[in-house]
Amino acid sequence: MPHIDVHNDLPGIRGLMAFRPEAAEPMGALANILLRDEEGISRAERELIATHVSYLNDCFYCHTSHGATACQYLDGNKALVDQVRKDFRNAPISGKLKALITIAASVQKSGKAVTPEQIEAARREGATDRDIHDTVLIAAAFCMFNRYVDGLAATTPSDLSSYDARGRQIAERGYGSHIFSTFPIPVSEVAQ
Amino acid sequence: MPHIDVHNDLPGIRGLMAFRPEAAEPMGALANILLRDEEGISRAERELIATHVSYLNDCFYCHTSHGATACQYLDGNKALVDQVRKDFRNAPISGKLKALITIAASVQKSGKAVTPEQIEAARREGATDRDIHDTVLIAAAFCMFNRYVDGLAATTPSDLSSYDARGRQIAERGYGSHIFSTFPIPVSEVAQ
Repeated sequence: MPHIDVHNDLPGIRGLMAFRPEAAEPMGALANILLRDEEGISRAERELIATHVSYLNDCFYCHTSHGATACQYLDGNKALVDQVRKDFRNAPISGKLKALITIAASVQKSGKAVTPEQIEAARREGATDRDIHDTVLIAAAFCMFNRYVDGLAATTPSDLSSYDARGRQIAERGYGSHIFSTFPIPVSEVAQ
Repeated sequence: MPHIDVHNDLPGIRGLMAFRPEAAEPMGALANILLRDEEGISRAERELIATHVSYLNDCFYCHTSHGATACQYLDGNKALVDQVRKDFRNAPISGKLKALITIAASVQKSGKAVTPEQIEAARREGATDRDIHDTVLIAAAFCMFNRYVDGLAATTPSDLSSYDARGRQIAERGYGSHIFSTFPIPVSEVAQ
């Protein structure tokens, strides 16, 4: 049960966002920009960075929901998502993504934990300034989202199939405040 | 020197935001909602919560700039701001604000560090669900902003008077993407 009465039974961050829609709107917009952009880092890779950081922050709701969304972009390869969650260094992903997740994992500890050597390693694997910027900001943003969800003890469904359904919706429609208000999305809205 | 070339010499988060204006817009909007609202928690109190969390995260740019903004709302009482930064439990602030900063300090560690006892203590001091929500989200948001600034090694001015000037501007005009683009604000814009 959440620490506060959110006046709804929506799961995870969605219940909190419905409680405070003014704040939900920029948070949804930020998620959309950071996770739906495809320049330099693919949507699958952005979701994998978010999943790994959320796993390090021990936020079950976030690493499960973003892992499910990553899975949608990866032909349903749950084993790969799980390996990135727990052991990305040995996962079959690009050297560039490994270097970027290394930076993200430092950000999870503290901004100051990022080293010039980690930045150089990412550059050697082909990362641009924009890729490094987005990686740091995705990791930082999930240090916010994870703390928001767990700091208010948001409702966390234990039924894993609900995350898969949600992952499909996010992959199809993206983030933004509209996505937080309904689950499942009414047929009327899907038909638009 | 920042880890990436941001193509400008703006200080702190402003240099990063100018590099990626699409992401700057929702972050500015979020800061405005969380720090400029006055329902339940005053602007001074919101800035003090942000300052304390930024101090715990050892982010010099953020705790100095938000401390300077708090100071603007507190008749220039720098000693009070500094005491809240380093020793809020013994500062001459309300019991309610002490209870909310206690929650914020837990969020800085991890969302899961917030306890039902801390929530109850805040309620006993008169905190509402909305006050608790905003406190958790301010603390979580500064875990993002602080990591964004230090994770990219943003330029941090050592001249403390520049933070005071900036604090005055923020107190007068608020956040939002417009505030990040110019410093000092051109006379033409102030005259509007």
